[in-house]
Amino acid sequence: MSVGEWWFPSHLTEMTREECLELVASLRVGRVAYADDEGPVVLPVNHVLDGESVLFRVSPNSEFAKHLGDGQPASFQVDDFEDFNMSGWSVLIRGTTQLVAEDEPHADANPWAEGDRTLNVRIVPTSVSGRRLLPA
Amino acid sequence: MSVGEWWFPSHLTEMTREECLELVASLRVGRVAYADDEGPVVLPVNHVLDGESVLFRVSPNSEFAKHLGDGQPASFQVDDFEDFNMSGWSVLIRGTTQLVAEDEPHADANPWAEGDRTLNVRIVPTSVSGRRLLPA
Repeated sequence: MSVGEWWFPSHLTEMTREECLELVASLRVGRVAYADDEGPVVLPVNHVLDGESVLFRVSPNSEFAKHLGDGQPASFQVDDFEDFNMSGWSVLIRGTTQLVAEDEPHADANPWAEGDRTLNVRIVPTSVSGRRLLPA
Repeated sequence: MSVGEWWFPSHLTEMTREECLELVASLRVGRVAYADDEGPVVLPVNHVLDGESVLFRVSPNSEFAKHLGDGQPASFQVDDFEDFNMSGWSVLIRGTTQLVAEDEPHADANPWAEGDRTLNVRIVPTSVSGRRLLPA
């Protein structure tokens, strides 16, 4: 039995950039993706939105830190889905990463997790996109 | 005021492989990361766990499909966090992707979203890791 035989799929609609950024700002946890030699990695972070860029903090000694901050490409993703009616939304910010200098005024993301997360990283967007999944 | 001055951070503990896979199996939505020429991309999918590999369906005409299925590296990620006590967990499966042949018996992930998602993709894990964030 194929999927289409027993159930109506949910509809996809594109969100505006403004809507995407509002949703990013509304959440306290998102996900950062970067690539190392073996491929893409996705890890959760506590973030803040600063204008149109996303700020988060990592440990300077982490694997994470080795692959961020020097113009490397990275993505930031947030989403929220509901099982009961198969609906939700997701936002993807693609961009490049920069380290935030300590003396540079910046919004501060407070990491929930323990550890020496002193390195402030900014993802500067090259694209912002998002979609809603609406119940059938 | 720095973060450490006003709040106790949550503790991080590693999860076992079994615990990670149980959590992956318990959810109906996860995220797949792949890399294109511009860097990493993260997109939500409906998935199923089949043994230790993750199965999901994509449209054969999608950007997604171009970067999956031929041994390319990809990651699968799930997480769940609670704002009120700054706790949660996340799991990351790193691996390589294979297309699932139509005549090969396989678990079937039912995509919630509309569209011709006929391409069945498997991520075969090279590593499975996860962490819990426990309230302070």
